[in-house]
Amino acid sequence: MAARPYIAVLGPDAADETELAQARAVGEGLARVGAVLVCGGLGGVMEAACRGAREGGGLTVGLLPGADRSAANQSLTVALPTGMGELRNGLVVRAADAVIAVGGAYGTLSEIALALKIGRPVVGLGTWELARGGVGDEGVIRASTPGRAVARALGAVTP
Amino acid sequence: MAARPYIAVLGPDAADETELAQARAVGEGLARVGAVLVCGGLGGVMEAACRGAREGGGLTVGLLPGADRSAANQSLTVALPTGMGELRNGLVVRAADAVIAVGGAYGTLSEIALALKIGRPVVGLGTWELARGGVGDEGVIRASTPGRAVARALGAVTP
Amino acid sequence: MAARPYIAVLGPDAADETELAQARAVGEGLARVGAVLVCGGLGGVMEAACRGAREGGGLTVGLLPGADRSAANQSLTVALPTGMGELRNGLVVRAADAVIAVGGAYGTLSEIALALKIGRPVVGLGTWELARGGVGDEGVIRASTPGRAVARALGAVTP
Amino acid sequence: MAARPYIAVLGPDAADETELAQARAVGEGLARVGAVLVCGGLGGVMEAACRGAREGGGLTVGLLPGADRSAANQSLTVALPTGMGELRNGLVVRAADAVIAVGGAYGTLSEIALALKIGRPVVGLGTWELARGGVGDEGVIRASTPGRAVARALGAVTP
Repeated sequence: MAARPYIAVLGPDAADETELAQARAVGEGLARVGAVLVCGGLGGVMEAACRGAREGGGLTVGLLPGADRSAANQSLTVALPTGMGELRNGLVVRAADAVIAVGGAYGTLSEIALALKIGRPVVGLGTWELARGGVGDEGVIRASTPGRAVARALGAVTP
Repeated sequence: MAARPYIAVLGPDAADETELAQARAVGEGLARVGAVLVCGGLGGVMEAACRGAREGGGLTVGLLPGADRSAANQSLTVALPTGMGELRNGLVVRAADAVIAVGGAYGTLSEIALALKIGRPVVGLGTWELARGGVGDEGVIRASTPGRAVARALGAVTP
Repeated sequence: MAARPYIAVLGPDAADETELAQARAVGEGLARVGAVLVCGGLGGVMEAACRGAREGGGLTVGLLPGADRSAANQSLTVALPTGMGELRNGLVVRAADAVIAVGGAYGTLSEIALALKIGRPVVGLGTWELARGGVGDEGVIRASTPGRAVARALGAVTP
Repeated sequence: MAARPYIAVLGPDAADETELAQARAVGEGLARVGAVLVCGGLGGVMEAACRGAREGGGLTVGLLPGADRSAANQSLTVALPTGMGELRNGLVVRAADAVIAVGGAYGTLSEIALALKIGRPVVGLGTWELARGGVGDEGVIRASTPGRAVARALGAVTP
């Protein structure tokens, strides 16, 4: 049996309607291909992605920043409090074979950076643009639709 | 819907036949009551408990010490590399509502101690005995069979 | 007695001559004002900053990614192995009242993002430029010289 | 120049007079031999050990469980908030070449266990007694006085 890919969906608690719809479609797409969805376990992009995945019969895992399960969104199959605050961002990235960032605030940026640092493929849907000395960084694979984001993340982890 | 309890099964990679049989029975018991089994994701007691749980249709989560999924046992529903080495012992405990220790070496002892420190009920099956100044510590709830261990862990987390 | 400020110097192991000279001057400046210099403990920008600080009589602390002290640079007063890999980036940020980024690769970017996430002032010397939807992010305080970087970091943490 | 040994002093916030006096003497002893004292940064045994060390001109490092420096005792040369709660116990152990436990509650027990797990020498002054199946565990090196505790910790790390 081939192992299931683990894909993290990154994005903020506070998201606009477009981002939430994109996250939900990403979650549906991940469920369709049998991926395990990993996230930070809270609301906004994380919750929308989990809802999409669960509606598609998928498995969702949340790594929570707090020390108890109370902040978990209601669409998690598995909710794990870490008590590590924003240091759990690194755990989300470690647990994933590839990551998809939808929108994003500073927490999402930290996860993108950690994923790039340890060599996890990063697919972006309307997320951060990075540059050094006026020269754009090409580390993030840009996708224009949720379907393409899922396809690119999957493509990046399949041998 | 009532939330599912999360119960960690603690125990070493190197375990004897009695411990492995006990761990497997604990896993079966946890599956029967619908608990999520959390563990360190490796072999020995961890693997035996996961096998028992999976055979009973249960859900198993492994928090691995290493930075990749390769060391995960084959009976995990969800395998999460943490890259934190033995610091992941604290994550196993944090993720659980109660813990059951089966046998155990020093790593298991650290998990028992962390659980007692943060107030998680600890049930022991043939595990460490603790004392200070010759006076036994009563923190660990002793169980004589796997069935009783599961019942006591469940009883300790059900309101 | 007023508490000493803790200032983290962020930057990569692989740095060019300009960055190394800037880092050294930042370290000297931090020693002059009595700050404790916190960093990731390795080479490049981290080492240059520590050398500058130690030559000025300052105190330097390195939080190492590995599990032993062998990778520590030779200009650390205190070298602490964490065994957490790149998750120690979050510890460097947590330990600091403000951070100064000199140059930087993805690891530095993760530290900048975590600092912005938890509200630590971030001063940048030739480091990452961040944007969303073509609009530049103003989170990083830009400094044109090492002296100004130190002054701005200090100014941001002094009431 | 030989590297300075890093020795952790483990023990609870709530300690009796005997334990506090022992901790202070351990701290003095560590300062005398030029060791860096690492601890959890809070009160009780940790504070007493730091006070002893500082009076002897020693260097003390506290790894705090909380996310800010406010809980640090007043005898720390370096106070580092980790925001990891009791997971920082593992960091204290990792940072040390050997550990000395003075008295101790469950948190101290977790540190003793983690140290034994990763092979750090553990010296005990009136601390936990461990057994499995009625057979005492010999992992902890027992010392009858603070002076002997320091000597044994030093002896265990000096080649």
